[in-house]
Amino acid sequence: MTCWGSRLLPGNLRSLGTSPKSQRVADCHRHHEAYGYFLPIQTRWQDNDQYGHVNNAVYYSYFDTIINHYLIRYCGLRTSLLKSPMVGFMVTNQCTFHTPISFPQVPVAALAVEKVGHSSVHYRLALFPPKDTKELPSVNHWDLSDGFFFGHPKLAHFDSSACTTGSSVHVFVNPATSKPTGLPEDFRKGLRRLMSPASV
Amino acid sequence: MTCWGSRLLPGNLRSLGTSPKSQRVADCHRHHEAYGYFLPIQTRWQDNDQYGHVNNAVYYSYFDTIINHYLIRYCGLRTSLLKSPMVGFMVTNQCTFHTPISFPQVPVAALAVEKVGHSSVHYRLALFPPKDTKELPSVNHWDLSDGFFFGHPKLAHFDSSACTTGSSVHVFVNPATSKPTGLPEDFRKGLRRLMSPASV
Amino acid sequence: MTCWGSRLLPGNLRSLGTSPKSQRVADCHRHHEAYGYFLPIQTRWQDNDQYGHVNNAVYYSYFDTIINHYLIRYCGLRTSLLKSPMVGFMVTNQCTFHTPISFPQVPVAALAVEKVGHSSVHYRLALFPPKDTKELPSVNHWDLSDGFFFGHPKLAHFDSSACTTGSSVHVFVNPATSKPTGLPEDFRKGLRRLMSPASV
Amino acid sequence: MTCWGSRLLPGNLRSLGTSPKSQRVADCHRHHEAYGYFLPIQTRWQDNDQYGHVNNAVYYSYFDTIINHYLIRYCGLRTSLLKSPMVGFMVTNQCTFHTPISFPQVPVAALAVEKVGHSSVHYRLALFPPKDTKELPSVNHWDLSDGFFFGHPKLAHFDSSACTTGSSVHVFVNPATSKPTGLPEDFRKGLRRLMSPASV
Repeated sequence: MTCWGSRLLPGNLRSLGTSPKSQRVADCHRHHEAYGYFLPIQTRWQDNDQYGHVNNAVYYSYFDTIINHYLIRYCGLRTSLLKSPMVGFMVTNQCTFHTPISFPQVPVAALAVEKVGHSSVHYRLALFPPKDTKELPSVNHWDLSDGFFFGHPKLAHFDSSACTTGSSVHVFVNPATSKPTGLPEDFRKGLRRLMSPASV
Repeated sequence: MTCWGSRLLPGNLRSLGTSPKSQRVADCHRHHEAYGYFLPIQTRWQDNDQYGHVNNAVYYSYFDTIINHYLIRYCGLRTSLLKSPMVGFMVTNQCTFHTPISFPQVPVAALAVEKVGHSSVHYRLALFPPKDTKELPSVNHWDLSDGFFFGHPKLAHFDSSACTTGSSVHVFVNPATSKPTGLPEDFRKGLRRLMSPASV
Repeated sequence: MTCWGSRLLPGNLRSLGTSPKSQRVADCHRHHEAYGYFLPIQTRWQDNDQYGHVNNAVYYSYFDTIINHYLIRYCGLRTSLLKSPMVGFMVTNQCTFHTPISFPQVPVAALAVEKVGHSSVHYRLALFPPKDTKELPSVNHWDLSDGFFFGHPKLAHFDSSACTTGSSVHVFVNPATSKPTGLPEDFRKGLRRLMSPASV
Repeated sequence: MTCWGSRLLPGNLRSLGTSPKSQRVADCHRHHEAYGYFLPIQTRWQDNDQYGHVNNAVYYSYFDTIINHYLIRYCGLRTSLLKSPMVGFMVTNQCTFHTPISFPQVPVAALAVEKVGHSSVHYRLALFPPKDTKELPSVNHWDLSDGFFFGHPKLAHFDSSACTTGSSVHVFVNPATSKPTGLPEDFRKGLRRLMSPASV
């Protein structure tokens, strides 16, 4: 497997101001234990760019998908603009790409909640490739509607080390006024479930 | 469920030159029996456009995905530009949208092969929504790596009438010369499996 | 320039039921004269797929863009779901791909209106590549906000033969009821301007 | 104009470890002076998500586009996988979204080069909205093929404060071996032109 990222990243990131300590934190975010919720991601033919790998922008749409999926399924978010009392805007996000993936691989996305503020949510995200990258994934029977939580045996089908890690911050606003809106208690409850994932 | 399409389409299509006979053919293409191979499709947050439904262009990427998935998994297609002796170009495609779908629904795509020429393949395609469109799909355990064939009990989880139908034509060319290339026998064999789907 | 399409298409399309007469109609739709409105299209790195050409699904997003651009700029369409009295749904569309294009080429999209019904609009669409396909387009100073109409000297910078032709049908519905809604007179007026493009 | 970002971001980013000093650096990256090269970006209907704004993942494809455009046009990059001696992989990128934009706005993307390593390039990026956000942009005659450099009068048509800022790191590898490859001198020369943009 190509692994250009792991050889190059430490130096590159150091020059971006990353300290040895934050590097160790980043490394620990590459493991399953750092996440509470998992959703298989179906790659598409169009995701691969001219160089034959999933394009960097596409990872952000994978992460949007696991976040909104979790919010709808487990936190009661309603996304209809005509009916919803709040809509989420991404205010910042970032990804680090350790090794590439390609269609038709079926990786699993991972989600953790770092912090729940008055109207904002800080997420950590990762993508784990299927264990055998030479053939089509031999993994069967994923649940696209419910996802699964940390501890589930399905995780054994995926690499223990993330190919991509990232983070993002959502701010929820009132669609009529565009002003930040306090998060309802039920919504917070669903989010807190992902705050200390290993102990769920 | 919104069903603006079914009321409007006959008239619109008639004005496009569709005869009553071809309308009956189109209607029969809305049923499971008309297809041999099925692949669940994971919708993404980004698929919904400003009006809250999957954007029309996105359906073509779903259909690209089931086609390439089948060609790679069951016909031996190698898609690496550096290694593959042939690459597929779409020369024409079309879709008719009967009813809308939206993220986070999990529909199933359907594929049939209408004709295998010297270097071209004619496909028919459809998308079937999950049966319960009011809630998140209750369907579990889909196989994203193998898909499944007509007759499988999983089909019972999806509407018996397609929300979208389409067709497309692939021409395979030599990537070095861009000239059409004859399809290898193994490749044809995989495709013929989808030619009379109901009898597979 | 690769031109696999023109050699292959007539035969393929004949087998799809295309008569010699409809073939002649299709050919005449490959010329500038068949369209009234033009909008340059900026391709993106992500538009190219694994084979190095713009992916077929992406053309539909180009055509969505010229259509909505014209409706907003020249027909008074308001697209905010919270404020608009009508929203457009695509009920059918199709494309034929004669020759490929690639990022960073800057082609021009072309739009004609074939028919304006009570609540529906039938469009014809095309894409014309810049004249010199070996280098980056030497064309300067395009107007992305206004587009331009048939007869404009800018058209001389583009091939006289379309690399892609297509058609689509929009149906406008009331977003609250999802039922078809009659098109306002101002809206019709803007559309009629594209009905006999050569005489505008 | 909605400006939820500017009120919320300082606090959010502080909690992500941003010091007052790095906040000041970030603020200065919101001005034209911090960038050397500019390319207008044509938004698409499909870029708007369900909430009516350009989706966060789409900004990364805008930034991919200006980067690859500059590398092809001014640094001699050849992107054909069959012919190119080096291909660029994104190893990390991030964006901060200060205010939203929407189709059909025509913003301008901005690019600066922070560092050129042996085989890597560190970029800074921004997006500036057109000055009048209430109507369609009144800006005419953009040059999509050449872009323009800092100091050009066209910049006066855009807001002086970026709606989005970001950064990314490209590593160039040999496509056959996937190992990092030294950047050729001509390539470096084109990149250095963007290193102290205000003095170009």
